Amino acid sequence: MIKKELLKLTTADYINPLIIQRADPFMYRHTDGYYYFTASVPAYNLIEIRRSKTLNGLAHATPRTVWRKHDSGMMSQLIWAPELHYIDGKWFIYFAAAATTEFDENGMFQHRMFCIECDEDNPMASEEHWIERGQVKTPIDSFSLDATCFKARNKFYYVWAQKDPSIKGNSNLYIAEMENPWTLKTDPVLLSKPEYEWETRGFWVNEGPAVIHHGDKYFITYSASATDENYCMGLLSVADDADLLEASNWIKSKKPVFESDLAEHQYGPGHNSFTIAEDNKTNILVYHCRDYTDIKGDPLYDPNRHTKVQGFTWNEDGTPNFGKPVPYNNEQG
Amino acid sequence: MIKKELLKLTTADYINPLIIQRADPFMYRHTDGYYYFTASVPAYNLIEIRRSKTLNGLAHATPRTVWRKHDSGMMSQLIWAPELHYIDGKWFIYFAAAATTEFDENGMFQHRMFCIECDEDNPMASEEHWIERGQVKTPIDSFSLDATCFKARNKFYYVWAQKDPSIKGNSNLYIAEMENPWTLKTDPVLLSKPEYEWETRGFWVNEGPAVIHHGDKYFITYSASATDENYCMGLLSVADDADLLEASNWIKSKKPVFESDLAEHQYGPGHNSFTIAEDNKTNILVYHCRDYTDIKGDPLYDPNRHTKVQGFTWNEDGTPNFGKPVPYNNEQG
Repeated sequence: MIKKELLKLTTADYINPLIIQRADPFMYRHTDGYYYFTASVPAYNLIEIRRSKTLNGLAHATPRTVWRKHDSGMMSQLIWAPELHYIDGKWFIYFAAAATTEFDENGMFQHRMFCIECDEDNPMASEEHWIERGQVKTPIDSFSLDATCFKARNKFYYVWAQKDPSIKGNSNLYIAEMENPWTLKTDPVLLSKPEYEWETRGFWVNEGPAVIHHGDKYFITYSASATDENYCMGLLSVADDADLLEASNWIKSKKPVFESDLAEHQYGPGHNSFTIAEDNKTNILVYHCRDYTDIKGDPLYDPNRHTKVQGFTWNEDGTPNFGKPVPYNNEQG
Repeated sequence: MIKKELLKLTTADYINPLIIQRADPFMYRHTDGYYYFTASVPAYNLIEIRRSKTLNGLAHATPRTVWRKHDSGMMSQLIWAPELHYIDGKWFIYFAAAATTEFDENGMFQHRMFCIECDEDNPMASEEHWIERGQVKTPIDSFSLDATCFKARNKFYYVWAQKDPSIKGNSNLYIAEMENPWTLKTDPVLLSKPEYEWETRGFWVNEGPAVIHHGDKYFITYSASATDENYCMGLLSVADDADLLEASNWIKSKKPVFESDLAEHQYGPGHNSFTIAEDNKTNILVYHCRDYTDIKGDPLYDPNRHTKVQGFTWNEDGTPNFGKPVPYNNEQG
């Protein structure tokens, strides 16, 4: 019954928020016709996947746990921002994990990036199908998170956020070419660091990169500032025939491209990913945001960053036009 | 848009599972026309409420946190099974909490029952409106959980699960009359202890009582055995003009009244509550269950007990006929 109701909905009718209490949402539409979805869970203790043939169906899809935190060690706390990628016929999940919930001497969380792999058609079938490939190591051993990856002209790139002790702030964005999904082939190249006012509110942050190709360019969106109403999205771009590892080829937008809409109570939209609508045409922005600002207690344990989806278009200059965060269309209590 | 789609659904069309990853579901339809919903959250760290004018609307309703666990002390761990009650013009939440996640010397969790109160029309408005009334103390200081309450002939009763060191098993069911929502007026009366085969599979458990009146009787459903596929629901009944504090007036069903349906992959249905459908006639059973049995790791941190709802009818002898757990009707991955 409900299936039919949901399939009748068009891209204009996406449920928003689509998925309650899922932050750092990642979506991928696979060749099997399913939208696969993963995200940070409020307990930060495991990685789950759900799937559906429609975006709205994800609201009701039952998740499966595919990996859970260790009892101790580097992968035992604060499992953040998993991304599910299908690379050369295998599934990979990148995620950040820490050995402790404590801050280090600089008041920073202590995450590193890790990679797990699954060789089955259905990545949800069982957690027994997932094997750990270990830490994705970079030349500096420091706070790392939010890795994503993409292929361009047959090269495989990794983009992530990391602290450099010599640069002010929590994290910057880097790119490297990869030897395989869990091993860097080249040195990291700094793509962006917090510098503008909108990147340095509350905290100096560049994180949550997401890659999309359009026209003759690659774009990387990312998230900036503290994860409250100041959180917003920035944009990097590069010509798709340029050397992606040459920092000077990348252009950084001076203004945020997606930000809070105070009038609509949509606060701190960000940590996005991209997918394509059921019509195979409409580009979809997937992101989280809150609908209130008076967070009580530790924001990390305020679970109400919800996953939202909305279509977006392209400006005449070829850049994405994300518009504003759409209002919630659920029945508000 | 979605609102209209949802309102078109009839009681036969409830989304199932209705609410993903909410165990011990409690629902209450208030005089303001809203269904209020609360439940255990997978992180067991806070109490949230959501509300909607339709049952299906609860699937998309955005929760608000109304209380969060203390940093230390008796209310600092494993916040379980909140119930929201409206008593004489004020809101009360009963919940179980522990000082530690460790077991005691008998291998038992160490919860006690607590009560918080809110004097506002909208119980979701702010956690600042909730005040703590402290522990609901009983003569024995032992593992206690899953309290509910009801009024009958102008008396106010409290029904809960508790360990008695002299009785085998995890917990039994008790009733007492209340002085006020957080203070017992009478001694507890034992209503039921685990004794039948279906109450003692894995663990000896009676817990999760829920009260409903029909015809000339009060019924108490409860949950029995381990919280895996063995979990099932039992039934107690009493004439509504009898002394509810006289144990011998209560009759206990020799068989479970709701249990796993292996063919439909509905495992361990229970910890129910009751509400009424939008038609103001159809009785609704609210419960959680899983759709798999191969739980990896600690079942407490397997988050996939989902909230389900389904109508039920009454047998000719006046007892409830819950049927079987309905299959999931979401699009399965």
